[in-house]
Amino acid sequence: MSIVTVERKILKKNDELAAENRQIFKDHRIFTVNLLSSPGSGKTTLLEKTLERLNHTIKIGVVEGDVQTDNDAQRIARYDVPVVQIVTNGGCHLEAKLVQNALANFTLSSLDLLIIENVGNLVCPASYDLGEAHKIVMVSTTEGDDKPAKYPAMFRVSDLMIINKIDLLDYVDFDMQKVRKHALTINPNLHIIELSCKSGQGFDAWIDWIKGKLSSYTIK
Amino acid sequence: MSIVTVERKILKKNDELAAENRQIFKDHRIFTVNLLSSPGSGKTTLLEKTLERLNHTIKIGVVEGDVQTDNDAQRIARYDVPVVQIVTNGGCHLEAKLVQNALANFTLSSLDLLIIENVGNLVCPASYDLGEAHKIVMVSTTEGDDKPAKYPAMFRVSDLMIINKIDLLDYVDFDMQKVRKHALTINPNLHIIELSCKSGQGFDAWIDWIKGKLSSYTIK
Repeated sequence: MSIVTVERKILKKNDELAAENRQIFKDHRIFTVNLLSSPGSGKTTLLEKTLERLNHTIKIGVVEGDVQTDNDAQRIARYDVPVVQIVTNGGCHLEAKLVQNALANFTLSSLDLLIIENVGNLVCPASYDLGEAHKIVMVSTTEGDDKPAKYPAMFRVSDLMIINKIDLLDYVDFDMQKVRKHALTINPNLHIIELSCKSGQGFDAWIDWIKGKLSSYTIK
Repeated sequence: MSIVTVERKILKKNDELAAENRQIFKDHRIFTVNLLSSPGSGKTTLLEKTLERLNHTIKIGVVEGDVQTDNDAQRIARYDVPVVQIVTNGGCHLEAKLVQNALANFTLSSLDLLIIENVGNLVCPASYDLGEAHKIVMVSTTEGDDKPAKYPAMFRVSDLMIINKIDLLDYVDFDMQKVRKHALTINPNLHIIELSCKSGQGFDAWIDWIKGKLSSYTIK
């Protein structure tokens, strides 16, 4: 029972710090998203392609969460955007405190969009609010079509589901309608975008989603 | 600091229970493996294909670990093997105690092989010994070739790495030599099998690995 109490205390403290982060983002008019998926669904590739498309029109910052390496931050740094790597040293999710510490490394007044790439994990990060405006869950067609049903918490807390790797649909067993149906049963308000970071198909819908959201945030 | 202490206590208690499980498996000459991967790498499909090949020659039991559903147990039950579903209710890994409770539902004296399919998660399950003879980590070619580098703990504690979905190698960016090299740098004793559960390519090597291990266990 003591363990449960400790966990509750951790989550309560995390929620308080997330509220502080949310206020910071609001004060600086920064639109912040928390990007979540299994390892290898394509989060970092989505980021790279997004930077290619938007880096010259809006000011983007990136927080990279990883268990051990700074490989992803190195990939992102090539795009000449401010990027801060959080290495969790075995921790399976980002917490609001880690993100708050990371914010000290940005010039917040100059940011329009902050993308937080969480640790690759479809379970634990669902419980930790980071202060973001939206959680975005990404699944890929190569992971099978049972992910919403098997990991419902992540789809319940997200506002957008990106279905990546649709260029591989012909080569895998993946029932798009089943995934959409299961996800919407869990969360009827979930917005869904199908795309391929590799071929570019459907990518405009994602860019349009960001631009639409940004328009109400960045009145700088 | 109290949190760290609680975590250490949990892991210590888990190790004690895992040792008890290990003794139970030894007493009953059951070869037990703990199957680990990201969500959607193909653990359940590997299990299904393994049951198709071995179910008539050896006695196999399955423990299914899932966050929420019993979908996987239902898939396995069709093969007419004893299967026990552990639903962790949001928990991101199996623990030795949960497995010990599950064992009460098997006729242990009649089992040769017990396969434990862990929760889909490349981080947390690495820390929890279940009493298995070997941890087996599975990655698939669609997840990118950076998984050993980014999630090293899982590859350090495993004895076998299965690289699945090699039928998709032509359609994805995946450097097989890079994965092998990184994994072997982390764990020089790691045995590696490349296969496709879908096409069957390489599957014999996996069956041979099991049979080789079983030969020293099942002297029933």
